[in-house]
Amino acid sequence: MLQSVISSLNSNKIVLASGSPRRKTILQNHVGLKFEVIPSTFEENIDKSLPPIDYVRETAKQKALEVAQRLCIGKGSPDLIISADTVVTQDNQIFEKPKDREDAYNMLMRFSGRKHSVCTGVTLVCPATSTVFTGSKVNGFENMLITQFHESTDVMMTTLTPEIVNAYIDTGECMDKAGGYGVQAIGASIVEGIYGDYYNVMGFPLHRFCKELLEIYNKQ
Amino acid sequence: MLQSVISSLNSNKIVLASGSPRRKTILQNHVGLKFEVIPSTFEENIDKSLPPIDYVRETAKQKALEVAQRLCIGKGSPDLIISADTVVTQDNQIFEKPKDREDAYNMLMRFSGRKHSVCTGVTLVCPATSTVFTGSKVNGFENMLITQFHESTDVMMTTLTPEIVNAYIDTGECMDKAGGYGVQAIGASIVEGIYGDYYNVMGFPLHRFCKELLEIYNKQ
Repeated sequence: MLQSVISSLNSNKIVLASGSPRRKTILQNHVGLKFEVIPSTFEENIDKSLPPIDYVRETAKQKALEVAQRLCIGKGSPDLIISADTVVTQDNQIFEKPKDREDAYNMLMRFSGRKHSVCTGVTLVCPATSTVFTGSKVNGFENMLITQFHESTDVMMTTLTPEIVNAYIDTGECMDKAGGYGVQAIGASIVEGIYGDYYNVMGFPLHRFCKELLEIYNKQ
Repeated sequence: MLQSVISSLNSNKIVLASGSPRRKTILQNHVGLKFEVIPSTFEENIDKSLPPIDYVRETAKQKALEVAQRLCIGKGSPDLIISADTVVTQDNQIFEKPKDREDAYNMLMRFSGRKHSVCTGVTLVCPATSTVFTGSKVNGFENMLITQFHESTDVMMTTLTPEIVNAYIDTGECMDKAGGYGVQAIGASIVEGIYGDYYNVMGFPLHRFCKELLEIYNKQ
């Protein structure tokens, strides 16, 4: 939905503060956005006992601010920094990437035949002097404007058997994915249905991002 | 979910009776199935005033039977033929590929800010002598076994403006897609949410297919 403004958007210097190949693919292939990838080095030390929404919003914010600080917003610095953090949750517990095979097995068996949620927090940071992008001032970062949002998508997983889970873990695609499955890969077949934005389950709330960016852009 | 039986499944001769590049990709990348593509030449002349579910089930069945008849099920013939037909529906009206730019524009504006459904009928045909795949006998095709199912997924489209729709049509991805948008391409960003199987919106109900095939296979 950004096609009418994409060339204008792409004349800005945009940074994706995430090393996730899936986020890169979504922004390149489904939006046509041009950006540089500069992953955040923020340690992700936010308290996991927080409500999942607060956890991802705060983690995404800290990721974006770390990159913003490093790139010293000023002349030649980015016009827009995009960061995101995604977790899988069930019964208010946060599931990230599995530690090992056993952890992946336990996660998947816990999701079996039930719904879980995928929640992504997104932060957009730009210089306070920007004439293109808007946002709110951040305490301690008076030269930056910040926009924050989050999106949750429910996922209904099929009823799994130990045989299905073990054969799936053998594919090797579990370990680098929050929740232990890849909805965009072989894991697609164990997902009965999605209730919300599919791309959010991949790690980036595509529609909401485009809507927010269009709104920010139209405010100029 | 077919990983535990995939090598055994792939020792059979499987035919996909559809020329859709999206169905081919789904079965290859998300299932790992090996098959030959032999598109059906069935004319798709089923009455469009039928309820959409009946329409896609009957079209998929005729597509599969046309290919089955052509390949003369017997020695050296396929062990399994897979066919599918997808339509987009709203208020019981069927929307297929847009005829021209104006048709694409009208379809998208009609979907704007509302839900529509994507419905796919799938037919699996195999020889009646099969020891691997099962199904019901078809009248007039006594040497074949048939399994039929369908899947519906609701799609909530964002509120569109003429500017967004025109810029989207300019991308050129509308014309070869039922409903005039590609959920797996740039069209992804105009979709607020999906309620059911995402891959069904792309044209093939991946999870249901795997579940049905596993059931058929486990009956051996």
